Amino acid sequence: MNVKIFHKSFSDNLIEQIKRKKSIICVGLDPRIGGSGSKIPQNIMERAENNYNDAIWEFNKEIIDHTYEITPVFKPNIAFYERYSALDALKKTIDYIHEKNSLVLLDAKRNDIGSTAEAYASAIFDNFKADAVTVNGYLGSDGIAPFLRYVPEGKGVIVLIKTSNKSSGEFQDLFSISIPDIPLSGIETTIEKGLLVRNYIQMARLIKEWGENPKFVGEGNSYGKFGYSDIGGVVGATFPEQMQLVRKEIPRNFILIPGYGSQGGSAKDIVNGVNDDGFGAIVNASRSINFAYQKSPYKDEFDETEFGAAAGKAAKDMQEAINQELEKSGKIAY
Amino acid sequence: MNVKIFHKSFSDNLIEQIKRKKSIICVGLDPRIGGSGSKIPQNIMERAENNYNDAIWEFNKEIIDHTYEITPVFKPNIAFYERYSALDALKKTIDYIHEKNSLVLLDAKRNDIGSTAEAYASAIFDNFKADAVTVNGYLGSDGIAPFLRYVPEGKGVIVLIKTSNKSSGEFQDLFSISIPDIPLSGIETTIEKGLLVRNYIQMARLIKEWGENPKFVGEGNSYGKFGYSDIGGVVGATFPEQMQLVRKEIPRNFILIPGYGSQGGSAKDIVNGVNDDGFGAIVNASRSINFAYQKSPYKDEFDETEFGAAAGKAAKDMQEAINQELEKSGKIAY
Repeated sequence: MNVKIFHKSFSDNLIEQIKRKKSIICVGLDPRIGGSGSKIPQNIMERAENNYNDAIWEFNKEIIDHTYEITPVFKPNIAFYERYSALDALKKTIDYIHEKNSLVLLDAKRNDIGSTAEAYASAIFDNFKADAVTVNGYLGSDGIAPFLRYVPEGKGVIVLIKTSNKSSGEFQDLFSISIPDIPLSGIETTIEKGLLVRNYIQMARLIKEWGENPKFVGEGNSYGKFGYSDIGGVVGATFPEQMQLVRKEIPRNFILIPGYGSQGGSAKDIVNGVNDDGFGAIVNASRSINFAYQKSPYKDEFDETEFGAAAGKAAKDMQEAINQELEKSGKIAY
Repeated sequence: MNVKIFHKSFSDNLIEQIKRKKSIICVGLDPRIGGSGSKIPQNIMERAENNYNDAIWEFNKEIIDHTYEITPVFKPNIAFYERYSALDALKKTIDYIHEKNSLVLLDAKRNDIGSTAEAYASAIFDNFKADAVTVNGYLGSDGIAPFLRYVPEGKGVIVLIKTSNKSSGEFQDLFSISIPDIPLSGIETTIEKGLLVRNYIQMARLIKEWGENPKFVGEGNSYGKFGYSDIGGVVGATFPEQMQLVRKEIPRNFILIPGYGSQGGSAKDIVNGVNDDGFGAIVNASRSINFAYQKSPYKDEFDETEFGAAAGKAAKDMQEAINQELEKSGKIAY
């Protein structure tokens, strides 16, 4: 391994990557095997003699080789590696991303309390050597606190705020109010007046608070003497209006924006997630890059043996589309 | 493996176990290595020559051998197996619990959307062969739906409702209201009247809805022709009042009650989670059983080589304390 740590904070390392690569894209690494939809090409499966660890590692390496020069951070989702019993391929992939001097955000959406939260943090940072991880904060501060205590300095934690799926509003959009004087038996009641806040905004505010711990604040050069925080949030590209509101709530926290490409989010939709200084957001695409070789327009240009080149082209197109929108809005850092 | 499937639904299998073993306890299997607190005894570590997979497997086997006769369901928390890179020990442990004709609830609190949720379900049920799993529903129905579609018949899904930690109220206790006519920019507003519901009650209602899918309804013998559902919820023993409210909301869904023992919940506290028929709840303890050999009163009777017998005694004491409270309240099924 040949990891060069540029800065003491995850956010500063991310900013360094963004500047150097002139890109705010994040490439998901979500291998899929078999079935009728997106999948690892047949020639890879044959060469690996259907050994899933080998096939996934070979597939990922090829995707990374064709994208790392414009990709500040890669985001493998651990669900796929658990599904295919391919945690060794995940570890090799993470090491390889580090060799290429890029960052790894492990998408794991972990959540638990006390010493169990600590065990998850240890698994993510000690075993898998990720630079950052996604977590679900629904359990509240003492689900997050032991996790944050354990997180080594220089690592990032990205908390779900407003997820990209259609029904995310079932909880996240509900207006909430804390009414401590009402007894528990009053689960349904009427109030005459109340200050209401949606759950996802409440989550954003907690992220702001957690992220102000000096352990997690980078040096940066924005916002006076403060840098960006290593604690960030997730807001789907599919919700650009909510993005704007979250951006205002947490100006110094990075936003991971999923839902670009396959899920329907466009380059225009992500502009609201970016700060005026051009930082503060990274935009993820997984399927539309990993399996570009199966999708228009790339499938006309590339055959399945060229899936890596197809992914490289799709990533480049995404980078350019986003940079064009950032330039139009004047929010570009490079 | 020698698994005998008695019934087509998880809930019916659980009821069968409860009746046969005269017990509603659930024993957590959360191995801890090193440090100053609860931990696997030194003699096990030495015999395993510090191989974590071997040590954890030997530890778990001993705990299971001393508890399975009164334990309908075991609950390993995957965080600890991820921490110690001991997923092989987890698989062996699950196979062994099945050999002993008991059930496995894998505590993983998984959550994601679309095909990623499906990947998690496949990992849990196809790879780890769990009988049930815990999930976090904060992402809403389309985080849960693809998971439920994939779940094989006869398997259970337990969704977090009101977790046992102190700050669980930061989200879960907030009163929520859906106000579709208010624009998104109105994140803070006043309302004159509204029907309010706490987030955890909203979660309980969704669980009820998800659990009414015939795929997940057991034959049972309670509530007329309907049985219990295979979709359940988590409510901490530390919140007995909320337990009572949830019990009313979801009469046909099982409640997993953590927080007994080390976290402070008592046998009295769990009675509210049990239905009049004596079913509908299982009560988990992990540390207080796994590491009973380090705790009063067991540490006076057992030395560290007898940690299994200490765990057996602690489990028996827990079973009896709970059964005594159930008898007092008239809510006992056996």
